[in-house]
Amino acid sequence: MAEKNIPSIVISRLPKYLITLERLSAMGVENTSSGELGALLNITPAQIRKDLSFFGGFGKKGSGYAIPHLINSIRSILNLDSVWDVAIIGAGKIGQALALYEGFLNRGFSNKILFDADPQKIGQKIGNCQVFDIKNLKEKLREYDIKVALLAVPQVHAQEVADQLVQAGIKAILNYTPVYLTCPNDEVYVQQIDPILQLQHMTYYLK
Amino acid sequence: MAEKNIPSIVISRLPKYLITLERLSAMGVENTSSGELGALLNITPAQIRKDLSFFGGFGKKGSGYAIPHLINSIRSILNLDSVWDVAIIGAGKIGQALALYEGFLNRGFSNKILFDADPQKIGQKIGNCQVFDIKNLKEKLREYDIKVALLAVPQVHAQEVADQLVQAGIKAILNYTPVYLTCPNDEVYVQQIDPILQLQHMTYYLK
Repeated sequence: MAEKNIPSIVISRLPKYLITLERLSAMGVENTSSGELGALLNITPAQIRKDLSFFGGFGKKGSGYAIPHLINSIRSILNLDSVWDVAIIGAGKIGQALALYEGFLNRGFSNKILFDADPQKIGQKIGNCQVFDIKNLKEKLREYDIKVALLAVPQVHAQEVADQLVQAGIKAILNYTPVYLTCPNDEVYVQQIDPILQLQHMTYYLK
Repeated sequence: MAEKNIPSIVISRLPKYLITLERLSAMGVENTSSGELGALLNITPAQIRKDLSFFGGFGKKGSGYAIPHLINSIRSILNLDSVWDVAIIGAGKIGQALALYEGFLNRGFSNKILFDADPQKIGQKIGNCQVFDIKNLKEKLREYDIKVALLAVPQVHAQEVADQLVQAGIKAILNYTPVYLTCPNDEVYVQQIDPILQLQHMTYYLK
């Protein structure tokens, strides 16, 4: 996978800019500034201008950013021009909640299919997602041409299933298990949903 | 609530340093360097040294960081010396998964009590968490002296319940709903679990 030269930390901020711009747009706001975005996001305006300068100039000195143009540009940079079909691995509580979650589609993703090992769940539909037998993981992922997976299996199976996802050509894994996955960096991107990191950030301010 | 002068973005990295140090420690490693931490975290060593310098010196030039000391120091900075009891608001799929999640305790938190409006759930126990009637939210939160809440109610109720949490003296809310909560900044810290932000970060690298 080709590494780009823009720091990952910069890329990680683009989705935050995007959702903030989308919220402003939904309120009917058409223009904004690095100062306004910075205040909403608790990021310095200088940082925002520097981040966006990696991708060319978006604002005019004094007149700020045209929100619709900046939204389209960031969506394009993040490869969100088309919708990514997503597979959910594990139809337990988290997997079912993700299958029923309606927030994917208008943000670039569609929760498409589910996998589980439980015969009672296989063949069922949860939300719009058909549940397939996890034994057929690789063949179904290839059939549906899916590159993005949400991993929500019991933690004892997490690494073994992640290995299968890599073999099936999955390129991005969002890991809901508490397991620290070992995956080949050059084949797949992994991010973890770890609520404790955010809780520990907040407790700094308490007491 | 007293604002400190250290940027929030610096504080947000401390939990990531902590979990990486804890993983190294679990593998029996006793010393590390900003270079090793940086490689594991995809953060520059200079950034790590700068972040830690806000809190005084931890490393010796050339000999790096003593992991047990650095773990204890970061835990202390983040107010994790004692355990924070946590309330889970909403006993749906996400709330139940959180009640059953075993990863809180050794990282500074204890999932203690649950709230729901469903009479079938009230009075039950999920994991170690007793389910209380959400009508008694304020009085129970005060009785248990809880300052940290995980919000996992249906999104139509999110803001209204968040308002009640603030009134009950909750100081930190981890918001699992897709709703952008409006809360008084000077009374409560809010963070959101938004899986789309992490998915959008990864799609940058795809295609």
